[in-house]
Order: sequence, then C-alpha cells, then structure tokens
Amino acid sequence: MAETSLIFPAEEFQARLKRLQTEMSGRGLDALLLTTPGDSFYVTGFLTRFWESPARPWFLAVPVTGEPVAVIPSVGQALMERTWITQIRTWDAPHPDDDGVTLLSDTICSLLGEGASIGVPMGLETHLRMPLADLDRVAKRIAPRRFVDGSEPIQRTREIKSEAEIEKIRATCDIAARAFGRVPEVATSGAPLDRVFRDFQAILLDEGADWVSYLAGGAGQGGYTDVISPASTRALQSGDVMMLDTGAVKDGYFCDFDRNFAIGPASDLVKRTHHALWHATEDTLNNLQPGMRARDAHRLLSDGLKARGTKPGGGRLGHGLGINLTEWPSFTPLDETELREGMVLTLEPVAATEQGRILVHEENIVLRADGAELISPRAPEDLPEIS
Amino acid sequence: MAETSLIFPAEEFQARLKRLQTEMSGRGLDALLLTTPGDSFYVTGFLTRFWESPARPWFLAVPVTGEPVAVIPSVGQALMERTWITQIRTWDAPHPDDDGVTLLSDTICSLLGEGASIGVPMGLETHLRMPLADLDRVAKRIAPRRFVDGSEPIQRTREIKSEAEIEKIRATCDIAARAFGRVPEVATSGAPLDRVFRDFQAILLDEGADWVSYLAGGAGQGGYTDVISPASTRALQSGDVMMLDTGAVKDGYFCDFDRNFAIGPASDLVKRTHHALWHATEDTLNNLQPGMRARDAHRLLSDGLKARGTKPGGGRLGHGLGINLTEWPSFTPLDETELREGMVLTLEPVAATEQGRILVHEENIVLRADGAELISPRAPEDLPEIS
Repeated sequence: MAETSLIFPAEEFQARLKRLQTEMSGRGLDALLLTTPGDSFYVTGFLTRFWESPARPWFLAVPVTGEPVAVIPSVGQALMERTWITQIRTWDAPHPDDDGVTLLSDTICSLLGEGASIGVPMGLETHLRMPLADLDRVAKRIAPRRFVDGSEPIQRTREIKSEAEIEKIRATCDIAARAFGRVPEVATSGAPLDRVFRDFQAILLDEGADWVSYLAGGAGQGGYTDVISPASTRALQSGDVMMLDTGAVKDGYFCDFDRNFAIGPASDLVKRTHHALWHATEDTLNNLQPGMRARDAHRLLSDGLKARGTKPGGGRLGHGLGINLTEWPSFTPLDETELREGMVLTLEPVAATEQGRILVHEENIVLRADGAELISPRAPEDLPEIS
Repeated sequence: MAETSLIFPAEEFQARLKRLQTEMSGRGLDALLLTTPGDSFYVTGFLTRFWESPARPWFLAVPVTGEPVAVIPSVGQALMERTWITQIRTWDAPHPDDDGVTLLSDTICSLLGEGASIGVPMGLETHLRMPLADLDRVAKRIAPRRFVDGSEPIQRTREIKSEAEIEKIRATCDIAARAFGRVPEVATSGAPLDRVFRDFQAILLDEGADWVSYLAGGAGQGGYTDVISPASTRALQSGDVMMLDTGAVKDGYFCDFDRNFAIGPASDLVKRTHHALWHATEDTLNNLQPGMRARDAHRLLSDGLKARGTKPGGGRLGHGLGINLTEWPSFTPLDETELREGMVLTLEPVAATEQGRILVHEENIVLRADGAELISPRAPEDLPEIS
C-alpha cells in the first residue's frame, strides 16, 4: 500500500528527535524506552487504531544520539516500514513465554554501554503500556544498565507543538466547528440524547474526522450534573441545556472543545452563566502569556467567573492537547508547569448554575510569543437556542 | 441524571465478584488492585469514554471477601454512585504531588492486614494504567503488605462470559451485521477508501453502535497487504478486494468481525481463497470443543486452509472478545490456555493470495458445552461482489 503517505515529511520527525535528544542529553539520559501510542506516533509517525487491542506491547528505543529503533510485533512491520524509521526489529506476538523481552533486551544492550541510564516515563499523566512483569524481566537482562524516570524529556518536548502540528490540530478543530454548526439538524426537542450523540458522531465523520475517539456531554433542565456519563435515552425537552464535548481525530491529532445549546428559551440564570463562562474565557484569551504557570491559567479563569458573580466549578479548568485528547499540564491551583510558546492548550471553565448543575465551556488555543491565538472557531457570546 | 440506568442489574455484578473472589482465594490473594477501563467496568459497571484522557489514574481495590472499594478522581464520583458500588473514595485529580497515592495506600491498609498479598495484573496482555513511580510509592507505603502478580484471577474470571454478557456481544454483532449489509451503499467503484471508512462508521452509528472504537481493513488488487493502516485516499477499482474489520461498541461490549467484498469480478484465486477461509472456519465451528487448548483452534484453522491448498498467514488466528476488542487467549501454536464453556472467541483465519497479499476472514462465537455457537451472523460462502 505504497499509496498511503506519511502524515508529515521526515524532516518534521528529525526535528522532533533532535529536540527530544537535547532534552535527554540535558538530563543525563542515554536513551528513552517509549511504549504508548502517543509517544510512538510522535517520534515515528506510526499511526494505527490497532492499539485498541491490548494484546501486544510495542517498543521504541530512542538513543541520545542516532536513530530510534522500533521493536515491534511483526503484524506492524509493513506499516512501520512506511514511516521514516529504518531500524525495525520484529517478533511474532503475542508469544506466551517471551513477548519481545529478549529482543528488546538485546536491542538495548547492543545500543548502550553498561553504565547507561534509560528513561521510562513514570510520572504524572504517564503509564507503561506493557506487562509490568516483562519490564522487570528486561531490567534484569539489561543490568547494570538501569531504568530511571524519563517523563520530563518526552513531556517537555511533546508539549511544544511545531507549526505542522498546530495546523493539524486546527484542521481537526475546523471539522468539529462545522459539525457543531449542524447540531440543530439532530438535536431537536424530543430527540433522545443517545440518538443525538450517535448522529453527532456521524456528522463529525461526514465533515472529515477519521474517527471519533471521544464524545461526552450532558443535557438537563438549567444545566447538567455530570459530563462523563454515556448519553441517556432521555428525550431533549424545553428548558434543557445540552452540551456536546468532542475529541475527534484527523491525521492523528485531536480537537477538544465543546458547545452548549439551549433547547427552547433559556432561563436568565443559564444565560448569565453562559455569559460569565464566555467572558472569563475572553479575559484569559486576552491575558495569558508565555512565562506564566499552569496555575495562572486556572486563576485567570476562576477570577473571570467570580468577577461576574459566578461560582467556578471544581477540578481542572483546561489542559494540554494534541496527539492525546488531554495532555499535560493541568490548569489546577497546584500545577507549576511553565506555559511556553508553542503549547496547544484548552481553556475549559466550569460554572455552577443551581441544584448541583453546571455549565462547561471550552476553547482550544496555541500560545504565541504575544499571547493566546484561538484555534477553535470562537463560540457565540450568547447561548444559541434550538427550538 | 438518575434517568441513566445500569447496564446490568446488581446481581450480575455480585455474581462476577463471587467468581473473582473464588479465583483470588484459590491463589492465596487477599485483594486485587485493578486500574484499567476493562477491569473496572467488569467489576463495577462504570462505563465512560473519559478513559480516553490519560491524565488521571482510577483505582479499584477488590478484597477477597466483602465489597470492592473505588478510589477515584472526584470527577467520576457522580457516575460511580450510579453503579452498584457503595464504597467510593475520591480525590481532586490530577494532583501534582499526590495523585491518589495516599488515599489508595490508606484504603489498602484499612482493608488488609500486614501479611496481605495484593494481586496486580502483570502478565501477558495486561498493563498498569497508572504512573509507574506511583505504584512504587504505594508499595512502600503499604509494606509489609506486598504486590504480586494478579493476572490469573481476573483473566480466568473475565474470560467466561455470563449469558447477559453474551447477549450484549450478540447485540453488537447484530449492529455490525446490519451495517455490513449496507456496505454496497458506500463502497462503489471509484469511492476513496478513507471515505468508505468514514461512511461505514456512520452506518454503524446509525444502526445503533454507541461508538466505533475500531475500524481497520484494506483494499487492493487480488487482496490487501496490511490490515492495520489507516485508510488511504486511493479510489476503489475493479479487481480490488476490500475488507472492513470493525470493533463497534454497544453498552460497553465489542463485536470484532470482518467482511470481504469484491469490487467488480474477483479472480479465481481470490474466490478460491475466500472459499478456503470460509470452509476452514466451518471446520472449526464444527470441531471446536471445550477442553481443547487455544493452540488447537490455531491448528484446526491452519489445517482447514492447508487441506484446501491455501497457505495460512502468520500471526494469531483468533482470540478472546468482550469488554476489550481483543482479550486472551490467542490462537497461536504456543498458547496452552484451556478453552472453556462460556468463552466468547473470534475465529480469524488469514490466507495468502499472491505477491504478499492476504485475505482475512473473521467470525465471533461462544463456546458451549457441545461446541461453538455463532454470534456473528455467518458470512456468505461466496465472496460478495459490488459492481
């Protein structure tokens, strides 16, 4: 299938590798061992929905100098050969006795001297996508080389998006924006919410999403109580506010923003709360700057809500975005991560209405030298009404 | 949102817990610590697409006697309270300094004596969905209680499906079967394959899928070379064989089967190969029995292909299915897992055609006391042609 091209030219990946290796070098790491779909796609361009199967581990060894080595199940060889990666070693997985352990260990030993420190992402917002017992087996086989925490280099590299990445995220945002514009086609009063969820996903696909990895939302009188449940079969009715929050994917890059709709006329409280969310976001768009911390974004959004007499909801009020639906940092009062030029972020203020109900608003931005640039087409200031 | 009901009655989960605790008890485990969406949903019924965000860990402690305790981010509290689980402890995640470590450690210590062995799935086809460094922190805090491998009890329990689960998987298979019946609406000669992939996902949603977590496939002259790549923009043309393989989801349960279509008249080799795949599957449907091993399923499928002069492809030829797109065991020559009554499995023979091209066929079954029962409506014996 040579007709399928890479999503980016090799130069894009070479530039990423160079930045990643600089981060590794600055922290005294001799290599990184990466196991997740996001980290693998970032370095190699290897994009497949096959990760949905938890059966097989996939490894990428990234030395501090030289090219990455993919150590992968043979089912992935043809696709990996179409990426810019040239060092590919395969085994027939799943193998009940040795599911890549020997091949990965031998690869690490052939690449690195005995004193080597190999970073594995172990920190906040990471996980290891391979059997834990196999990591221990590899650790024993590669000793005295040792595994250490490798979260920092991969997170500090991935969090700064290239212009090519920003254009991909913007393209996915544009798909979602067109789909949100078509919500009145399907979200009429009397439509069951689960039907609306299915129809909206179909609209996203029709507008060009490759797939829809995330759709959440809610609907209820004067707000919603919960934004992570699957859609209920309850029919939309006048007085409801319905919210749809989507993480559609195009070329491996997510959007993550939402839109609210009033089903029939909204109450004054709902209108006022939506206004507060919109203007708190506007304040933050106007004031966010590189050099601030993640907690400053939380403060700007919270203060913007309070200034309009609205109570901020709990939890984080935004986060990173890109290859994953959510990436670090998190806009909480505690996150000290520096906000830097090139970060793609979501602003996601949450406000209480009444009786435990909330409204959530969300936009996607890229942080530039002079401040925030919207990449999701801006929501209307006034809550749109569907009759 | 009390209008959203549980997918199963509490009795279903109580029966699962009892089976799980029996498996734990037989292996000397005092508790299990579960972290993945599939394991959590299996025990609690907690179903959400929010797992798509890697930001937060979610924990479920299952003691060998008594009820499970959910230790989760507060964003999930409302939804967890609607499940049968009554012991719910929450923290505000993500927390950069203590992302549930103290709460989880305290929970474990309050439930279990100092000599306790706590199973964590560490074996084949498992992974740990939490930061590795935090598992180490918890391990230190709960000492002398210790973590050991807990793969066996959860895998041996989950692999035997209840009748309620089988009906869910069958319902998802029926959705996919109706969608496959509508493929000729969208897969006409000249249609770009990526457009077909998007349209087919929309059809799955229209037929009742809650979401489409997996769609793979391929198209090419006389077969396809690769079944894990995203769809290319290449237009379908006469002489192609197109395959679509879907893991749609309804009520948290997957189907996983595929269908092949000839675009215009198929060559004799393609027709013969499809026949061989269909009849090798038929042989296996007729001969698979509880008490066999996973490797016996591989042998039946391979022998069925060879008997018809067709070369089996590499890799596994089927696997478990249910809450995950693929579950253990794997039909390889090496997998010794016993096939037992109540297992839901895929039969997935692969055959080479020419020039490195393959055809893949797949059906879903449940293993009964007297053999295989199909739960995907059987593919036609003759390769269907789309003009």
